[in-house]
Amino acid sequence: MSHRAAARLPTVFARIDHIGVAVEDLDAALALYGGSFAMATAHRVTVAEQGVEAVLLDVGENHVELMAPLGPDTPVGKFLAKRGPGLHHVAYQVSDVEAELGRLRDAGVQLIDDVPRTGLRDSRVAFLQLDSTGGVLTEIVQPAEGAH
Amino acid sequence: MSHRAAARLPTVFARIDHIGVAVEDLDAALALYGGSFAMATAHRVTVAEQGVEAVLLDVGENHVELMAPLGPDTPVGKFLAKRGPGLHHVAYQVSDVEAELGRLRDAGVQLIDDVPRTGLRDSRVAFLQLDSTGGVLTEIVQPAEGAH
Repeated sequence: MSHRAAARLPTVFARIDHIGVAVEDLDAALALYGGSFAMATAHRVTVAEQGVEAVLLDVGENHVELMAPLGPDTPVGKFLAKRGPGLHHVAYQVSDVEAELGRLRDAGVQLIDDVPRTGLRDSRVAFLQLDSTGGVLTEIVQPAEGAH
Repeated sequence: MSHRAAARLPTVFARIDHIGVAVEDLDAALALYGGSFAMATAHRVTVAEQGVEAVLLDVGENHVELMAPLGPDTPVGKFLAKRGPGLHHVAYQVSDVEAELGRLRDAGVQLIDDVPRTGLRDSRVAFLQLDSTGGVLTEIVQPAEGAH
């Protein structure tokens, strides 16, 4: 067992921004997360070019992102066909996504997105390669100003 | 898109307590999470009766729990054989795990643990049934006094 003060290390990831959950049926998932789990819906959006309808729910300063595919031939549709519904990815919050991508690249982490793209609520996001992250699809997120 | 103030709903889950990640090799995983991701190790423990060695790392007020099996015939060993390394579960933090178990049971959520058991760092934890949670292994965690 070891105890180290987090302050000794550079602060890189501020918190878990969200977990992404692949679901077959968004309304059934909302009955669980918005009902039984009593999480408030922060945002709901259809992103046609990614073939997904997404709902972002609040859990304190963290979030759950529910993702339902718009069809079987979409990234989330293929994930569901292969793995079934469940945990899809984790996203960590950073204050400067470009600086962090450079730092991770220098550390030998392989990137899916060399350049950040726009995520939910005008955040700037990038995904890391599964091969570099032990099979955990990992995203870094810089929220838009004023969001958390 | 809908915006609702979280304050209108009862506060149930305070935050994401941690994500659980199943790994083949704890030292390789620590090179990523403690090295490239610069997360500080908060706790490291072997839990023989669960057949697992676990490391808890800090991400702001959240954590990542890395779990390596002590052998193939353990819960995490079987998970790795079936699914490969990756996201294993998510845990939400609650202030009163027994009250929350009762509330979830009343809401129709099936429980793996009807009675809380002891988790890492003397927390009190309980798992919910996969059938009730859309394939996401979900844990609720009441931290020990003084921990977060």
